[in-house]
Amino acid sequence: MKIAVLGTGAVGRAHAARLDELGHQVTVGTRDPGATLARTGADTMGNAPFAAWLAEHPGIRLARFADAAEDAELLINATAGHTSLAALKAAGSGNLAGKTLIDAATPNDFTTPVPVPMPSPWGTPAPILDPVNTDSLAEQIQRAHPEAKVVKTLNTLAAHLMTAPATLGDGDHTVFLSSDHHDAKQQAGALLAAYGWRDIIDLGDLTTARGTEMIQPLYLALTRALGHEHFNIKIIR
Amino acid sequence: MKIAVLGTGAVGRAHAARLDELGHQVTVGTRDPGATLARTGADTMGNAPFAAWLAEHPGIRLARFADAAEDAELLINATAGHTSLAALKAAGSGNLAGKTLIDAATPNDFTTPVPVPMPSPWGTPAPILDPVNTDSLAEQIQRAHPEAKVVKTLNTLAAHLMTAPATLGDGDHTVFLSSDHHDAKQQAGALLAAYGWRDIIDLGDLTTARGTEMIQPLYLALTRALGHEHFNIKIIR
Repeated sequence: MKIAVLGTGAVGRAHAARLDELGHQVTVGTRDPGATLARTGADTMGNAPFAAWLAEHPGIRLARFADAAEDAELLINATAGHTSLAALKAAGSGNLAGKTLIDAATPNDFTTPVPVPMPSPWGTPAPILDPVNTDSLAEQIQRAHPEAKVVKTLNTLAAHLMTAPATLGDGDHTVFLSSDHHDAKQQAGALLAAYGWRDIIDLGDLTTARGTEMIQPLYLALTRALGHEHFNIKIIR
Repeated sequence: MKIAVLGTGAVGRAHAARLDELGHQVTVGTRDPGATLARTGADTMGNAPFAAWLAEHPGIRLARFADAAEDAELLINATAGHTSLAALKAAGSGNLAGKTLIDAATPNDFTTPVPVPMPSPWGTPAPILDPVNTDSLAEQIQRAHPEAKVVKTLNTLAAHLMTAPATLGDGDHTVFLSSDHHDAKQQAGALLAAYGWRDIIDLGDLTTARGTEMIQPLYLALTRALGHEHFNIKIIR
């Protein structure tokens, strides 16, 4: 399948590499491919320069958001949450129409000041969420692109576990699905199964993405308390 | 130990009965004991009249919030989250001073209208959270009663599992602790162990209660998707 992975950070790289390995035709989307390839230092999250990563994955193409989206049969939003709406606007509603759009992003807000912030795993004030509680990033994306079929999933765990669940606890942990589109949910579920997911809980319509997006503060507190990100939720029932 | 359980709903009853069984001297606190005992119908959550429940637990006393709190060495806030601040004000800061106050409440807001509400397990619009994101009910309680030692815990699962974790998955699932007070956290941890909890994660200071309180929308979505509340989170790591 032709798949566009939007975003060049850890989440985008994890998906692109794994999908390439699974035999898909993968294009990574970015705002400005020239600028992305020109960077020589680590990014803000400590990832190695994208050009070095891309050189190790000769089967993967890099393109502008719109070019990546146009050719794709399925898309994954792996951009940072606070940049997702802009990235998808650049991808273009027409290029998303009728296609499954897997949204794995978290709407972290690093800039709004908080009287007493939660401490983050990195020793700095933790981000808050925006939107939260009465809305979600997934719903914002769906409203901005009504002809896309948004599926929220994989936003509850670390990038390296999203695409390789078997590397933790024999793969016996949980991932969630939220979407208003039954067929897109089926397609996302098949992709999750290909990644190795066995415990997939369908939460219902896209409003339930509020629930999984709001896991983020607990996720950050756990990362800090445990001292690593090699963990995930299992729903015991 | 003399323990006050504030609240007469399912959470309060679960704690009171279990603590009584464990040999503690339990007083349930309520706003108006006469009114609580006079009710003959089920409450809004479908619980049987309190008087009938109390008759089956002759070792448990019912008292006004302040009377219950005054005598107690340890307190559990088992009131509905939107009434917790009023209940604890009635209990009185002086009666809470220097004592461990376990806060198991969820700040559900059932009244603020939401453009597109999440569906609840009961078929009605789901409540939202207030406070959320930049603050938590636990922190509000701590600020209102600076001499109390607030510990947020047990707010992430159903009442019947809080006090009897072994009834699900052999007890192999997780509960969280958040507090600014080390000694109170130790005391709450000992109580959790007496209930049967084995996997207790210390998340850190009380700001991390935002993380566990914000589990509520996922909890409601899961209750709806699974069709029951006999589930809990296990952190696989």
